[in-house]
Amino acid sequence: MRARVTLTTDFGTRDPYVAQLKGVLYARGPDDLEVVDLTHEIEAQNVREAALFLRTAWPQFPPGTIHLVVVDPGVGSARRAVAVEAAGQRMLAPDNGVLSWLLDAVAGEAQAIEIDPARLGVATLSSTFHGRDLFAPAAARLAHGAALETLGARVTGLMRLPQPQAQRGPRGWQGEIIHVDRFGNLITNLSRAELAEALQRNQQAIIRLGNGAPLPLVRWYAEAPAGIAVVLIGSSELLEIAVRDASAQALTGARVGDKVSLESA
Amino acid sequence: MRARVTLTTDFGTRDPYVAQLKGVLYARGPDDLEVVDLTHEIEAQNVREAALFLRTAWPQFPPGTIHLVVVDPGVGSARRAVAVEAAGQRMLAPDNGVLSWLLDAVAGEAQAIEIDPARLGVATLSSTFHGRDLFAPAAARLAHGAALETLGARVTGLMRLPQPQAQRGPRGWQGEIIHVDRFGNLITNLSRAELAEALQRNQQAIIRLGNGAPLPLVRWYAEAPAGIAVVLIGSSELLEIAVRDASAQALTGARVGDKVSLESA
Amino acid sequence: MRARVTLTTDFGTRDPYVAQLKGVLYARGPDDLEVVDLTHEIEAQNVREAALFLRTAWPQFPPGTIHLVVVDPGVGSARRAVAVEAAGQRMLAPDNGVLSWLLDAVAGEAQAIEIDPARLGVATLSSTFHGRDLFAPAAARLAHGAALETLGARVTGLMRLPQPQAQRGPRGWQGEIIHVDRFGNLITNLSRAELAEALQRNQQAIIRLGNGAPLPLVRWYAEAPAGIAVVLIGSSELLEIAVRDASAQALTGARVGDKVSLESA
Repeated sequence: MRARVTLTTDFGTRDPYVAQLKGVLYARGPDDLEVVDLTHEIEAQNVREAALFLRTAWPQFPPGTIHLVVVDPGVGSARRAVAVEAAGQRMLAPDNGVLSWLLDAVAGEAQAIEIDPARLGVATLSSTFHGRDLFAPAAARLAHGAALETLGARVTGLMRLPQPQAQRGPRGWQGEIIHVDRFGNLITNLSRAELAEALQRNQQAIIRLGNGAPLPLVRWYAEAPAGIAVVLIGSSELLEIAVRDASAQALTGARVGDKVSLESA
Repeated sequence: MRARVTLTTDFGTRDPYVAQLKGVLYARGPDDLEVVDLTHEIEAQNVREAALFLRTAWPQFPPGTIHLVVVDPGVGSARRAVAVEAAGQRMLAPDNGVLSWLLDAVAGEAQAIEIDPARLGVATLSSTFHGRDLFAPAAARLAHGAALETLGARVTGLMRLPQPQAQRGPRGWQGEIIHVDRFGNLITNLSRAELAEALQRNQQAIIRLGNGAPLPLVRWYAEAPAGIAVVLIGSSELLEIAVRDASAQALTGARVGDKVSLESA
Repeated sequence: MRARVTLTTDFGTRDPYVAQLKGVLYARGPDDLEVVDLTHEIEAQNVREAALFLRTAWPQFPPGTIHLVVVDPGVGSARRAVAVEAAGQRMLAPDNGVLSWLLDAVAGEAQAIEIDPARLGVATLSSTFHGRDLFAPAAARLAHGAALETLGARVTGLMRLPQPQAQRGPRGWQGEIIHVDRFGNLITNLSRAELAEALQRNQQAIIRLGNGAPLPLVRWYAEAPAGIAVVLIGSSELLEIAVRDASAQALTGARVGDKVSLESA
């Protein structure tokens, strides 16, 4: 199979950091390597944003894919550099929780190793750019077909960030906004399952942003009346608050962390 | 020939939507598939901007290229999902006019089919992300060498947006600004042909932005005096208003839709 | 070896210019060509920013790589279009100094030719987009395995921009900020070598931004106290001023060109 390494970083592309990663991967990887940009626009050092990004994107990729993740505020500190294998895909990342929501979604245990610089022939690491000096050489090694264990020794207890969970209350669920996308859609952590439960108890569900008025539930954007915030089931099976052809974020002023409630009527 | 699928979206890259498209394409496409980013920075839901982008970019690509276009404000509504073949290239897009200016430039009739989810084994479509759930699987199928007709039945009458046309007047042409680029250049819908006609009638052409002073005509940016808005023939054979080493948009405050006149002196 | 052409431009990706470059490369290049985005976010017409970008990124790439560089404020003027070979890599660019810092780092003389449009069968060049009409066809030719000399005649005396050099003073070195990255880190032109010299003379080095207080020297970001500007050796072996998990640019208000001094205590 053709070797593919994807990149998920908070580097932006105005600086030469992404280009350096690509140079190392092409210089050290197999001749047919393809490097695939997933994003370089993770907010600087926002490990949670990257964790949600990976949780959403990763299931679409085929077994054999190698994912290189560099959102690394603790670079140079004692945080471990790890490589993880799950469902036939491999992820190289700092052990700072960035993989945790992805791993929550994996059935069974994932294998993990701590990347050992000596195994890669890296004598001295830069203090600030392990993406270039450690993770990219490790990814290139895997792209040549090497087994995970050639990079270092098994480790367990990867850092896991808690996922913001919807809470069950007396009359339904209390959730929150976990992401605001480019269109201004407000993605919540309430899913189709909670909605189905509410609709089973009663034929109507009342969904509110904070203490606001109940939001109409629609099936798709185009069904929404203009200028009104509505709720629909988004592409990740999560409830999202949207405004047709406009930004729900701009209309409501809502932010990540704001509460959203779902109750049976 | 190697399979290539290009992407033109309004998704930005901070959200995981582009990554999801790539995952589906690599998971379902042939092993040697290459996915090529054209842009993810179309203004959110701006079908006209995407139509102009495609009109300009498309002629450069070789036959066999597959273009996946997801600028889709009507997702989930009754708008059709289509695949079109023209001049040996294939385009997958919502039938919302995004292909119309590209198709205006094709000699002869383009073939079009409506993508049938059942032909792709898609039982239930998400309400909000047909790019991932319908268009990308269809593109992957074509990338394996399938004929257009395997995706659905022939359709005609694709939605066509009117192109803003320059109007002939008593003393010349009235056009407008159709795009402002990153450099602040103001691209008009007046072309080399209208300019040639005006120069044939008289040896000088008077070009004005709105009711402004006549703008000097130069051959290239470097020929322009500093700090002055000038006119030249841009890379798409259209007249554009530019300021050397600076932004004509910032200097003039002009916007898409503002009038530009071309008269024989 | 697989043919790879990298792109470094100031085009952004909202306009169709990058897409046009890719179309030409895929249409004219070999079937297995891979086009690799390095950046399209160089500040518009900022040749110095591009020169520093290339200087930093280029050493990571393997021999055989073809780099297409289009930051070209003088397009259409008398500036030459050149192709340069150094250390087994080839660069196509306007002769405006954009390659100069890269070339400063090359041991030995680089070979250069002036690209002759006639050799590429280009009868008339657009006035504004030599990237599409001249450089991309030239890159595609090289990607097919052609020698540099097939594109034009040898030239010497490429335009070289002076690099901002640190100056030796009575008590140490005077340098300056040469780049501010996405994280707000302030990259200087003082290197590990100057720091080592200062530390050899005395066991402490005093580093100041302008006339500010001495900045603590740390080994990596995570070692820095929160909220304080510190100095460390960055990934290009240059001293950089940083704030842990925050922006040194925002904290200090510093800009490219601001002075940084390094003295033995």
